[in-house]
Parts: sequence; structure tokens; C-alpha cells
Amino acid sequence: MTLLERYAARYLPLVESDLRAVLTPPDGAPPLFYRMLHYHMGWVDASGESVEAERGKRIRPLLTLLTCAAAGGDIDLARPAAAAVELIHNFSLLHDDIQDRSPTRRNRPTVWAIWGEAQAINAGDALFALAHLAVPRLMPPQADARLVKRMMEVLGYTCLELTRGQHLDMSFEQREQVGIEEYLDMIAGKTAALLASASQLGALAAGASDEVQMHYRSFGHSLGMAFQAMDDVLDIWGDPSVTGKAAAYDIRQRKKSLPVLYGLARDAELRDLYARSDVLDEAAVSRAIALLDASGARQYAENLALTYSERTLAHLNAAAPQGDARVALFEMVERLLHRES
Amino acid sequence: MTLLERYAARYLPLVESDLRAVLTPPDGAPPLFYRMLHYHMGWVDASGESVEAERGKRIRPLLTLLTCAAAGGDIDLARPAAAAVELIHNFSLLHDDIQDRSPTRRNRPTVWAIWGEAQAINAGDALFALAHLAVPRLMPPQADARLVKRMMEVLGYTCLELTRGQHLDMSFEQREQVGIEEYLDMIAGKTAALLASASQLGALAAGASDEVQMHYRSFGHSLGMAFQAMDDVLDIWGDPSVTGKAAAYDIRQRKKSLPVLYGLARDAELRDLYARSDVLDEAAVSRAIALLDASGARQYAENLALTYSERTLAHLNAAAPQGDARVALFEMVERLLHRES
Repeated sequence: MTLLERYAARYLPLVESDLRAVLTPPDGAPPLFYRMLHYHMGWVDASGESVEAERGKRIRPLLTLLTCAAAGGDIDLARPAAAAVELIHNFSLLHDDIQDRSPTRRNRPTVWAIWGEAQAINAGDALFALAHLAVPRLMPPQADARLVKRMMEVLGYTCLELTRGQHLDMSFEQREQVGIEEYLDMIAGKTAALLASASQLGALAAGASDEVQMHYRSFGHSLGMAFQAMDDVLDIWGDPSVTGKAAAYDIRQRKKSLPVLYGLARDAELRDLYARSDVLDEAAVSRAIALLDASGARQYAENLALTYSERTLAHLNAAAPQGDARVALFEMVERLLHRES
Repeated sequence: MTLLERYAARYLPLVESDLRAVLTPPDGAPPLFYRMLHYHMGWVDASGESVEAERGKRIRPLLTLLTCAAAGGDIDLARPAAAAVELIHNFSLLHDDIQDRSPTRRNRPTVWAIWGEAQAINAGDALFALAHLAVPRLMPPQADARLVKRMMEVLGYTCLELTRGQHLDMSFEQREQVGIEEYLDMIAGKTAALLASASQLGALAAGASDEVQMHYRSFGHSLGMAFQAMDDVLDIWGDPSVTGKAAAYDIRQRKKSLPVLYGLARDAELRDLYARSDVLDEAAVSRAIALLDASGARQYAENLALTYSERTLAHLNAAAPQGDARVALFEMVERLLHRES
């Protein structure tokens, strides 16, 4: 086992137990109200029976606990925030699935596909409310109220950032032209904000200085930006047998990803392809990829991912993480950024 | 002007200014993201031009400021919570409109009717996030962090209660039988929880004892329960020229309101009427009302409203409110409960 795997094996059961504590129905609670949430978390099937479904990698809470440990803190003070970031992540997925009309998530029907949109919107709201309660409910009673307040404030701003990013993402679908800067602003909200806060909150729990907190925050932000830029590249040029996704899914969906935006600004034929109203066939997809290659879009996106990767490492070094958790954090960066899937 | 009107004239501009402060877009924010929220709040039209649209009565923030004043507090410490409860109320309306597919609210198209469901879900989420930020952003910096934390915790639980109530309300539509106790549990979440917290938060800001806070909380809860029970009666037996609503709208919609549930449990013909799949014509509606009258449903619901009204006054008295704000609070109860519309 690598050091990261050892940390994951130790921390993730704590995270799972905290998540379950926050989502435990109080006496007399409407059963279906909580069942929808437990289903979304991967704990039960639609009829409420316990299952071991796919639950996501819990990267965000792991980041919070690792940055806390690396900043010399007691992870018991970071566990509440770790649970909160994972709940916020899951809340956003629940509503995203409705907004995108996605019928499945992690190989199971989505909440809205089973219980309808109205109940699913409300289930997401409930998860949102519970996410905000995770910190006050899970923090040790003797914890400093200023720390609790500051954590809740960071989480609140993060939720606002997430919704801003989601707003932009949906708006871009309706628009012909989207600037690269706008796209980066969108992923800063939709992808990077929660990773930034997850990283900062661990350092905050550890009582790190504002400067160190900001380095951890910038580390998480850059990590999210680099990850998303890489993700956009892999969608088009990655090996589908490794990524597990259909090749060039973004292009088929005419998604305005980072390389595509670069290409659209430079190639009229690509703009025409994207403006067509019919489904793109294999030949059209191949042509689009060839045009992207010719425009230098891949190189551009890979360079941007590299720039953000370098910033990720620079901020992590500047935060001066300590001990085994330091090694595990660098291993996590390595796994997330130097991947082929 | 009555005392309540004088307080409203003094307090509501402060509330409005606080709401606007929380919803002020930061530099570089996506304009439409905030415009949807400003539209929902009644400040602008769909194109972003300032308007004076209907905005609701702002009863909840008024309650918070009045209970603070009546408990001898400085309303500057209650204003952030007052803004938060109004934002939470508006968040819930925004999502309710999507869930109910309501095309209009306060005589204007709803947010989802203009910008689509996906953006409207996200706009509600943004309002939810901003509601949670109102307290940390608006509280004076020197305020005790324990107070801020406690306020945020009360608001978090309130949001959970709201979603629980909304879940039950939507579930009841799908069910043939709903018990009176279940109905009361639903309105406790959907209607009474926010009034309870609005009232408690003012006393909390004033530094009142837990006992006094709980009396204010129970006062707000009972007020909400009494109001909803009266509302259910007025829908069926109120004068449409006074209520401004179509007569017996609930019956036409086959809504399982308090008197209806009482009648359904006692009258087979009413159950048959409610089980029919066609639209209820005038004769059917009149017959349903006659059956409700005969079953004693009106008397039952009016008695329940009276019981909750008495509890409202008992808890308000037990909270021992002081000064002019005391008089204004009693006037508010009078207006909300002894109404014909």
C-alpha cells in the first residue's frame, strides 16, 4: 500500500461514519425523505435496502483531512468540514442531474429519474441544508465558536461559487461564443472552488496562519483547474479503453470545452461543424478532432494544464506541509494530474 | 398610523437595504446570475430594469426585529438574521414554483417560466447559499462568534424543516389517505418552522434566556399553525371578494387541506368525490362544501385554529415582551389571525 492508500484506508471510514451521522433520520422523520438522500449517497437501493453502490472517490474530504494533518492539526477538528464538503459535492450532483436530465449516475438511475423532479429538487435542498448543519453538529462542543463560524462562512461562499459556475456552464450551452477567460472563470466556480475550500478548511481546522491557509486554498484551486483542463484533453485525445468514457463525448455533445473554445476562435470550419443542427457522425467527429489538432488546441490545453499543475505544486510547497501527510498530498496530486483516465 | 405600521415604516426599509446588500453582485459577477435573484425579489423586471413589483409583506423579518426590540435587544444584531429568514423564505418560494409548475407569483411570471427550470433550480440554490451568508456577512465584526454560530445553526435546522415539510406536502398529493397528525406535522415544517425561527432569532440576538427564546419560538410556531388552519378554512368558506382568491380553490385542486382531511375521514361520498378523476364542476364543489359542513369539518378546523391562537397569545405573554414592540407584536397577531382574507 502506498502512503496515500494507507491514509485513505484510515480516514475514509471516518468520513463515511460522519456522513452517516449527519444523515441519520431523527425519530419520526418521513422515511422516504431520508431514503432519497441515502440512495444518492450510495448506501441503499431505491426500496431502502442496504447496498454497496459506487460512491465516488471522496477526494474532497480526503483533501481536508490530509491538509489538516499536514498542517499539524488534530483531524477531529477537520472531520466536520470534511463531511460538509462531501455533502455539498453530492448536493450539487443531485441538482446537476436534474438540470442536465441525466438518467444515470455511477451506474444507477438518478434520484429524479426514480422519484421525479419535484421531490429530487427538494431532496437536493435537504442535502444542502444538512451540509450546512454538518459543521455545527459534528464539531466537538468545546471547539472555538470563531472556528465554527469561519468554517461555515467558507462553506457558504463555496456554495455560492458552485452555483455561479453552474450558472455560467448552463449559459454557455446557449451561446455561440464563449471566451477562454470566461470558461476558466466557469470551472473556477464549478470545479476548483470546492477543492480550494476543501484544502483550506483542513488548514483552518489546524489553526494555520492566514498565509498558509491561502497557500492550501490556491493549491486546491490550481489542482481543480489543472484537473479540469486535463479532463478536457483526455475526453478528446484520451484512450477510451482507459478513460472508460466514449471517445470525444464532449465533441459529440458539442460541449464547449477548453480545447474546443481555442479551436472555435481559430477555425471557421470547426465553427460551422459546431453550428450544424444535426447529430455529428463519426466522420464529422474525426474531422473536428483533426481541425483541433491543426489549430494547436491540444497543445494549448495541455500547456494550460501544465501551468496549473506547476502552480499546484508551488502552492503545496509554499504551504510547507509536514510528515507523512505531506507525502500523501504529493501522491494525490500525482494521481489526479498525471493520469491517463 | 398604528404602532405596528410605525414599526413597519421604520424597520422594513432597513430590511430592504440589508437584503440588497447581501444580493449585491461582486465585481465581474455574471449579470444574469444576480438579475434572476433581483427579479424574484421584486426589484427588477426580466430585462433588469428597476421596478416596484409586489414583494410580499416581509412578515418574517419584521417578526425578528420586533421580538428583538421586545426582548430589549439592539436590532442591529437582529438585522442579519432578519435578512436571512426573508431570503430563506424567498428561496423556498423559488423552488416551490418549479415543483408546483406555477407560472405566476405575485402577478408576474415565475423565474422558471422566464429562464427555464435548470437555471431556476440553480438560482434557488444561489439564493439558499446567499441566505446562509447573510448572517456572517451582515453581523457587526465585534459580535460574539457564539451568537453568529448559534444563529447559523438555527437557520440551518429551519431549512431542513422547510424541506421536510415540502417533502410531506408533495407526498400527500400522491396518497389517498393522510392523517390529521401528519398534516399538522407537514405545516409545522412548511409554514410554522420559519415563523418560529424568525421569532426566536430576534430574542437570541437580544441575548434573551433559553426559556424566553423558546417562548418566542413557540409563539412563532403556534402563529404559523393557527394562520395555516385559518387559511384552510378561509379558502373554502371565506368571501372570494375579500380573500382575492377563487372560492374553494383547494377543493377544485383536490388539495388535502385540514377541513378536507377531517371530512374525508368521516364521509364516504366526499371520498368518492375526491377519488374521481375528472375536473370538479360547480355542483360537485358545492356538494363537497355541503358534505364538509355536515361532517363538522369547518367547526373542527376553526377550533384548531382557535387553540393555536390561544397558544400563540399564551407564549407571547410568557415571553414577557416589553414596550411599544410588545403592543406591535400583539397587533401583528391580531392582524394575521383575526382576518377575513
